[in-house]
Amino acid sequence: MTGSASRVEVALLGGGIWAREEHAPAIEAAQNYLSFKAVYSRSAASAHSIAENISSPVDIYSEDTENRFDDLLQRSDIQAVVVSLPIGHQSRFIKSALLAGKHVLSEKPVAENIEEAKALINWYRTEINGPTWTVAENWRFLKSYEYAAKELKNLGKIIGFQGRQHDVVPENWKFNLTEWRRNPIHQGGYLLDGGVHYVAGLRLLLGEEPGNQIASLAAFTNQIQPYLPPVDTADVILRTRAGVTGVFQISRGTSLRADEWTIACSNGWIKIENETVTISRNGEIEVVTIPNERTGVPPEIRAWGQGLVEGKTRSEQEPEAALADLELIELMLKSGSQGGIPLECSHQDVLN
Amino acid sequence: MTGSASRVEVALLGGGIWAREEHAPAIEAAQNYLSFKAVYSRSAASAHSIAENISSPVDIYSEDTENRFDDLLQRSDIQAVVVSLPIGHQSRFIKSALLAGKHVLSEKPVAENIEEAKALINWYRTEINGPTWTVAENWRFLKSYEYAAKELKNLGKIIGFQGRQHDVVPENWKFNLTEWRRNPIHQGGYLLDGGVHYVAGLRLLLGEEPGNQIASLAAFTNQIQPYLPPVDTADVILRTRAGVTGVFQISRGTSLRADEWTIACSNGWIKIENETVTISRNGEIEVVTIPNERTGVPPEIRAWGQGLVEGKTRSEQEPEAALADLELIELMLKSGSQGGIPLECSHQDVLN
Repeated sequence: MTGSASRVEVALLGGGIWAREEHAPAIEAAQNYLSFKAVYSRSAASAHSIAENISSPVDIYSEDTENRFDDLLQRSDIQAVVVSLPIGHQSRFIKSALLAGKHVLSEKPVAENIEEAKALINWYRTEINGPTWTVAENWRFLKSYEYAAKELKNLGKIIGFQGRQHDVVPENWKFNLTEWRRNPIHQGGYLLDGGVHYVAGLRLLLGEEPGNQIASLAAFTNQIQPYLPPVDTADVILRTRAGVTGVFQISRGTSLRADEWTIACSNGWIKIENETVTISRNGEIEVVTIPNERTGVPPEIRAWGQGLVEGKTRSEQEPEAALADLELIELMLKSGSQGGIPLECSHQDVLN
Repeated sequence: MTGSASRVEVALLGGGIWAREEHAPAIEAAQNYLSFKAVYSRSAASAHSIAENISSPVDIYSEDTENRFDDLLQRSDIQAVVVSLPIGHQSRFIKSALLAGKHVLSEKPVAENIEEAKALINWYRTEINGPTWTVAENWRFLKSYEYAAKELKNLGKIIGFQGRQHDVVPENWKFNLTEWRRNPIHQGGYLLDGGVHYVAGLRLLLGEEPGNQIASLAAFTNQIQPYLPPVDTADVILRTRAGVTGVFQISRGTSLRADEWTIACSNGWIKIENETVTISRNGEIEVVTIPNERTGVPPEIRAWGQGLVEGKTRSEQEPEAALADLELIELMLKSGSQGGIPLECSHQDVLN
């Protein structure tokens, strides 16, 4: 138990669904490490909608009142911010907060594209001393994935992998009603947004052993649903440096339903379907349920808070890990837009 | 019931496992159309091993006795032959039999590679008048696939597809003990041999509607098991002319097990696992078992026999249909050997 004296005081930037349903309660729940002090959103109304859902008394900042973002940054008591804004707006908030000396945890993807991510990471690594920038990827905190990754080490060499993420985004889904989702300016629409989660899951399962990094991929992409531009479907082949091959299928516009990764090893295989982990060891099948803490956001925020208190950052929250995820999705979209040409990866030398 | 007077008299060329377990009993069972008269194999011993398993009194021909293949061809009573020989030896038997005026049903694949298949088909189409050459593909006679193909027409537009064919060939498996399998001179080893079946299944399911032909594919290939050269695994992405994307995963060296095709449509999907057909129609799931006649060989031989008696050939037994299957596997192997480059199809304008 860490005393309240050493807790880090935090502001949440964002007034959207994910901020309200995931980040705000998770910050509040990480009370051993974090003290929730303020919420900023473009409008006071959305900032208040966050504040109403938590019990901590938080100050409200917004662009339509006198207490604006710059005022928040000038508060010396607030040491850290969680950035939960649309993909296209995140980088300037990340930069401003770091320049103001605040620690930052920004939501995935790390940036809209590889070039911007590289520029931002390079700027952070060369210009910023003191405050830390980390990137949220809640799939790295799913207990079912952590469990599977551990069990995989007992099944011999990895010899193959396959993933299916199949669903349909209804035209009137709550997440689909926001303008930045309906007319995405970021590449890939939902494929980027969801895709980085799933490849984060794959990278966690493949582990950090030499040769298990993805070396190249090729993809065909398609837009099945007219209301899901620019593409809603990708079928991808991937190959590791060691030459092991696999597939990744993702669609947000299909009649199929799937949420699964399967990793084949020389002595068995493991399949993860959300909380259900099926393990085949030398022909014997075992099915176990490993409950996740919601979406993985609560343990993610807790781990970040603990790191701040202890003055450490976790390798899986470094922006380079998020860049590795983003790279796989960007190359997949790029290969798809170029008729399926195979593309080589350049940013996979990271811890998960 | 067709009287015995109009039956076609048939010889079987081949003394291997498939000839003994599938072709010979299927020829005998197609007694409405076929009369089983002779067996040829390289050795009299293997020819006798076929004859012992059937009740028809057949004459034996072999290269190690006085009754050789040429003697068989000179028999005017024998009007047709089934060629069930290793891939690399088939074409000269096909040619000799056709030149001797015999109808030919040769086992898939149509030839070792696209170039040889094209040359043989071109020779047949320009030089041969009278006798017919057809190519066996038993998957086109699997009732579960026929049923699924029919049901798919009620589910709206095809929007995606995915297939997994996963198994391991044990080092001492009966089919693996023959020299031509252990040290394949034909491309792809088991991937060609089994692969043409599975893509025949896919082509049957995609149907003959304009736009549903495979237009291009890309693949990564791998050799997992040292005793299964040259490759035992391929992960493939495919795209139809209409732009619909899908995947095909095939391995004979994996710890995974699968035998499935799933076709996604706008109003549901159908998954086939051997005889089990699962249909989702507007969210309602139905599972039906559609028993196949063994491997599909009995109805295949029967259909061929009926065609001979009636003087017709069936479109799905024309060599061009088998070339369409072979092309997909050859391009898959070629793409794999060239690092996953996407390749365009040229021979998919055929009926199934």
